[in-house]
Amino acid sequence: METKTKQALVPNQFDRVAANWICAFIGYPRIAIRLWNGTEYYFGDGVPVGAMEFHTRSALLNLLFSLRVGFGEGYSKGKIDIHGDILEIFNEFSWAFARRGQRSYYLGKLHTLISAIRRNTPVRSKDNVHHHYDLGNEFYRLWLDQNMVYTCAYYEKPGLTLTEAQVAKLDHVCRKLQLQPGQEVIEAGCGWGALSMHMAERYGVNVKAYNISTEQVSYARAEASARGLADRVEFIEADYRKISQRCDVFVSVGMLEHVGLKSYRELGDIVNSCLKPDGLGLIHSIGRSHSVPSDPWITKRIFPGGYVPTLGEITKIFEPHKFSVLDVENLRLHYARTCKEWLENFEAVSDRVREMYNDEFVRAWRLYLAGSSTAFQSGTLQLYQIVFAPGGNNDVPWSREYQYSKETKGHE
Amino acid sequence: METKTKQALVPNQFDRVAANWICAFIGYPRIAIRLWNGTEYYFGDGVPVGAMEFHTRSALLNLLFSLRVGFGEGYSKGKIDIHGDILEIFNEFSWAFARRGQRSYYLGKLHTLISAIRRNTPVRSKDNVHHHYDLGNEFYRLWLDQNMVYTCAYYEKPGLTLTEAQVAKLDHVCRKLQLQPGQEVIEAGCGWGALSMHMAERYGVNVKAYNISTEQVSYARAEASARGLADRVEFIEADYRKISQRCDVFVSVGMLEHVGLKSYRELGDIVNSCLKPDGLGLIHSIGRSHSVPSDPWITKRIFPGGYVPTLGEITKIFEPHKFSVLDVENLRLHYARTCKEWLENFEAVSDRVREMYNDEFVRAWRLYLAGSSTAFQSGTLQLYQIVFAPGGNNDVPWSREYQYSKETKGHE
Repeated sequence: METKTKQALVPNQFDRVAANWICAFIGYPRIAIRLWNGTEYYFGDGVPVGAMEFHTRSALLNLLFSLRVGFGEGYSKGKIDIHGDILEIFNEFSWAFARRGQRSYYLGKLHTLISAIRRNTPVRSKDNVHHHYDLGNEFYRLWLDQNMVYTCAYYEKPGLTLTEAQVAKLDHVCRKLQLQPGQEVIEAGCGWGALSMHMAERYGVNVKAYNISTEQVSYARAEASARGLADRVEFIEADYRKISQRCDVFVSVGMLEHVGLKSYRELGDIVNSCLKPDGLGLIHSIGRSHSVPSDPWITKRIFPGGYVPTLGEITKIFEPHKFSVLDVENLRLHYARTCKEWLENFEAVSDRVREMYNDEFVRAWRLYLAGSSTAFQSGTLQLYQIVFAPGGNNDVPWSREYQYSKETKGHE
Repeated sequence: METKTKQALVPNQFDRVAANWICAFIGYPRIAIRLWNGTEYYFGDGVPVGAMEFHTRSALLNLLFSLRVGFGEGYSKGKIDIHGDILEIFNEFSWAFARRGQRSYYLGKLHTLISAIRRNTPVRSKDNVHHHYDLGNEFYRLWLDQNMVYTCAYYEKPGLTLTEAQVAKLDHVCRKLQLQPGQEVIEAGCGWGALSMHMAERYGVNVKAYNISTEQVSYARAEASARGLADRVEFIEADYRKISQRCDVFVSVGMLEHVGLKSYRELGDIVNSCLKPDGLGLIHSIGRSHSVPSDPWITKRIFPGGYVPTLGEITKIFEPHKFSVLDVENLRLHYARTCKEWLENFEAVSDRVREMYNDEFVRAWRLYLAGSSTAFQSGTLQLYQIVFAPGGNNDVPWSREYQYSKETKGHE
């Protein structure tokens, strides 16, 4: 029996074929494949930028069933290792994939429609959000910036730190919204409350901020009290579907990814019912240049219920109520840099995180942060910041010069 | 017999019902209805801002069959007159229409899809364009700006003249495209060549400009020779589907409106085949905030084959080839002002235009220019300027500050 087991471990012709298939599917990246006994295959052209090591046969074969889930689970569980710079290796995967040529556009669209059928009900949304955002404020505090902003930063000038770039993003959003003291603002999906508190503190507005993450809301409330903002910022632990007040400004940064395509019409109805006719709105969301179903590993492990829309799909929020889309900015390269900084921070505290959770958790999060940075860098993901207004509102900015003029930046 | 005819002319109860129906359909605007014998009806609330006079019964009844065509034809042929400020009256119609409440979103979408089935073949496109743009350069010279720019101007600063605002628009487009000397630029649908010549003259690029209007191309060629630009700007009398060269920059200002929804995929294919992987593109087009079929009178008299898309529909050009949409700016209020200036210029030369054509032509064009200004003012029409890049191009602007900084404005 022992001999038989040992023989099974020796890579055979089939393992070579499997490794070749996987590389062919990715588009022959410049990445070597190393098997459990040290055997190495390389099917790429030129000097390899790194190696992917499979510690077991099943880890290799799992990639044949689902490349992304197989890799994600195998890597998280330590059955796959990568050797070399993780961002460089993931970038190589992305470029190889892009070189491989495109799948049918309509097939992708069909696939997306099928996978987006499941609607996020309020209960499902609560479960999904709990999965990610209630991991513990302590965990996020370890590697986010000082103000706990967990969305794309804006590196307005070279050399900004992550904290500075997050503040620059908050100001960029506020400037786009032309906030005026005394205005009523609704924020849908407020994270740990950084934007809400920034708007109230620096721009003098009153904010009602909605979030269904218990941990985040409790952090945000404590912070608002400590900063003396409790009378101007109200954190409401409720789903965005519960919003009922009227407002001058509607803003949502990094929530749309969790809303799900089937609920865009409903989100549009809510914005329409709360935003005054002379109001302005801004939605900031991860997006795509074309329809692609959600990454199955990310959906399974990191963001259940998430869906990343195209710009065309996002317009389904605005069209039924005739909102004018005034301004769209794509900040994908800023998000690539943000994720890279998060990854660096995360690596610096990974021992601590391993103690809090376990090694599988650390590896899964490393994969998620590195993969996200690469996806933004390669254009697989986009970041859209969209300013809109009710159709009949003519009190909208005449040009965008004000977003960049020194006068409006007086706050900084 | 004479008595009978006279009696038929006296407005009866049915005429009153017809007038009421029309006003109800528009949403009870503050506009009086005056009939052929002077009888006046008013169904609105508050002081009327003007009156609409019907000189014959058939002119009134035609509005029951098709409000827009009936009004457009009746007004053009002098069977309907309007009393009061034309822009103010049209604005009142727009607001009343908006107040009336919205039709079903999905019904509008369905209607649009049905009416967009007809594809613009190259031959049809040529006929359509001939109808509008080959009216004679002399005609357009009478009321356009000095550089003959027949698209939305950019009133960058208060007090700009139309000619200055058109130059500001050309520069705004050039800055968004970050033109560098020596680059190869393709312009699809170049009008009288103003942008092509501006890009070559001020930014040192080489331009191949496509247009299927014989009159416009001959004007543009003569102008390029006179300005010593013939070696850097080539005007090609051909359909955009004939574009075959490779380019660093693809730009199209005011052509998409004529392309027709069914040909967006084909336009995307062409942009994809000509734009280099590190290139940038810009499409500037009239748009809508939501799907609406083309105005039947505009399609009949002014722009046959035209279709005004939503932003979501425009993304069908970009998605199949994974272009990144980098920047969308909505300039609808600038177009409202542009059309208003065109209308004023047009009124100043209307006697001359009447001599060249006839009174019906003058009235139809007055209606078209005033109606367009109102449509942009009320948000019925939008103006989208969209910057995009091939998906893998990371050599894209880091932020939009360069569009507004003094340094990049050195050209002006």
